[in-house]
Amino acid sequence: MQAKQVLKGMTPYTPGKQIEDVKKEFGLTKIVKLASNENPYGYSGKVKEAIPTMIDHLEIYPDGYAAQLRDKLATTLGVDEKQLVFGCGSDEIIDFICRSYLEKGTNTVMATPTFPQYKHNALIQGADIVEVPLLESGYHDLEAMLEKVNKQTRVVWLCSPNNPTGSLISCEQLVHFLDTCPSDVLVVLDEAYYEYIEREKDPDSISLVSTYNNLVVLRTFSKAYGLANLRVGYGVASEEVATYLNITRGPFNTTSISQLSASIALDDEAFIQHSYEENVKNKQTFMDECKALGLDYYDSEGNFLFVKLPTSGDALFEYLMTKGFIVRSGEALGHPNGVRITIGSAEQMKELAAHMKEFLAAN
Amino acid sequence: MQAKQVLKGMTPYTPGKQIEDVKKEFGLTKIVKLASNENPYGYSGKVKEAIPTMIDHLEIYPDGYAAQLRDKLATTLGVDEKQLVFGCGSDEIIDFICRSYLEKGTNTVMATPTFPQYKHNALIQGADIVEVPLLESGYHDLEAMLEKVNKQTRVVWLCSPNNPTGSLISCEQLVHFLDTCPSDVLVVLDEAYYEYIEREKDPDSISLVSTYNNLVVLRTFSKAYGLANLRVGYGVASEEVATYLNITRGPFNTTSISQLSASIALDDEAFIQHSYEENVKNKQTFMDECKALGLDYYDSEGNFLFVKLPTSGDALFEYLMTKGFIVRSGEALGHPNGVRITIGSAEQMKELAAHMKEFLAAN
Repeated sequence: MQAKQVLKGMTPYTPGKQIEDVKKEFGLTKIVKLASNENPYGYSGKVKEAIPTMIDHLEIYPDGYAAQLRDKLATTLGVDEKQLVFGCGSDEIIDFICRSYLEKGTNTVMATPTFPQYKHNALIQGADIVEVPLLESGYHDLEAMLEKVNKQTRVVWLCSPNNPTGSLISCEQLVHFLDTCPSDVLVVLDEAYYEYIEREKDPDSISLVSTYNNLVVLRTFSKAYGLANLRVGYGVASEEVATYLNITRGPFNTTSISQLSASIALDDEAFIQHSYEENVKNKQTFMDECKALGLDYYDSEGNFLFVKLPTSGDALFEYLMTKGFIVRSGEALGHPNGVRITIGSAEQMKELAAHMKEFLAAN
Repeated sequence: MQAKQVLKGMTPYTPGKQIEDVKKEFGLTKIVKLASNENPYGYSGKVKEAIPTMIDHLEIYPDGYAAQLRDKLATTLGVDEKQLVFGCGSDEIIDFICRSYLEKGTNTVMATPTFPQYKHNALIQGADIVEVPLLESGYHDLEAMLEKVNKQTRVVWLCSPNNPTGSLISCEQLVHFLDTCPSDVLVVLDEAYYEYIEREKDPDSISLVSTYNNLVVLRTFSKAYGLANLRVGYGVASEEVATYLNITRGPFNTTSISQLSASIALDDEAFIQHSYEENVKNKQTFMDECKALGLDYYDSEGNFLFVKLPTSGDALFEYLMTKGFIVRSGEALGHPNGVRITIGSAEQMKELAAHMKEFLAAN
């Protein structure tokens, strides 16, 4: 069989270590997973209470249009319901964008390192990839990215806060970028970590969608909302762009349990506020601990911190695993001398910092 | 924004009517949906019992590899676990196939009418579509399809039982097709309705995968297993093909609830047996009723029957809707003078036949 040529250099996604596997491998009973930026406080109790009431007719296909969730989200965001597209996580919307706008003969501009699914899905569509290194500070080099945009460019990816560095693109930078970028190039602003951005720095990106027809904002229920397992993300765009993304969307790409859970989660503002506040506090404490250990890190507006190391990321990753902590080595993220650590609870972070101290003393 | 040219002639999927919408529109309290080939007996009670125990850590990403379900299914089917790929329904696997094997300059051969997602996803990848009309009997014209295969052909689609006609490709026909088709052309056998095929006609397609490296068999938990809402389908192929499909698969495309439910459903053989037996019986009774009404239909090995009409499909569809029955008009399926009707329970089919009789007397 003749698969696309580009696939021959690619491999299936390698996920972070599974909790049960690590337990078995190291004979541990307790594992703290700080590798995938999941919410340490779980998810809304109101959702948990409601799920058992959602299982009566699972033999019936879900509403692919997600009308109930769509209606509520449109009202919450102050946009028209036709401006929304729902995905099996926001990663699936990344694929819709690639399938709708990218093909051989086009190119797409993105930072490096950034969320790897942009490149992965763009390659599958045959587009040329133009990668622009982050500034040394971990921020996007927006001017260099603008310079790379040419007549073949169809899509530019901005990840803010950027995964894995955590750096934020400010509202002013965003407006400047959109004013400078040709208006027929789609600008994707991936805000998977939006709810964790410090409130006074909120770029209010959704309000920009009405001004800039070429802007798509991606958000997700997988991070602060704590529903990673239920796979719901969404995109907000002009009606034109949203319609094209809905053409490439599969007819039934989210389950009813997922849609209803997301809808209930959206109402539980107290849960989001608590997750936000704890993250700000625990991240600050952990940054202070890192400083005390002589470790530098990138500015982060997410629920994670990328810590730079005098050793390889793999070395600390392996050490922490023996102590029951799973973090993400920078090696897998295109930045070998560091680790990306999800901000857990105060107690988890205290224990983690103590293990990091032991590691550094011995290395 | 410059979306792919081909998208300009396409629209988002239009699903069958939603139950709640029909209730409102016609002031009805009871609706029988026989439009999407869902299981009238729901789904396994063992799954229903288990779901409330699966909701403890939905903030954690699912295992994208679906190791537990994979292991069980590989054993059940007698294949290696690396030969499997899981999708958000088997529709998603159709998209994986298109993304892995189709691009501009290639073509793909399929019947018409058949399941529309083959064409939809192939168009998005820029492939040329070669459609071969079904024989008048509703069966695939396999010889004509083989004649259409040329050097640019990457994928051939066989839907068996075919949606919407229900016709089956026999084991002998399948082997002949695979022996004749060039071995570097991927042959997709979509068996979404496999569990409904009369046992003595079972083509035992999985056993052919070890002989024919270019065969992919698609199956789903959405039909006989009654888990349409949870979105799990699977593909069985050679390890080479499965690896390519897993490259184009999203990292976390099925939820844990879906994976665990599918795994439990797989064990409940009594549920499948009951669904199968009732379908055989009720389909026969309904065919007899159709004959008595002077209506012809295509041979069907699925849980649906495509009935030919002296009127338009839309006319009967509209009439039945006012009576609280939703069926699928042939108009939307490329066959205007007919309706595709899911085989419901004995009681539902009896009531439906009575309404069809009223309709025919008045039209």
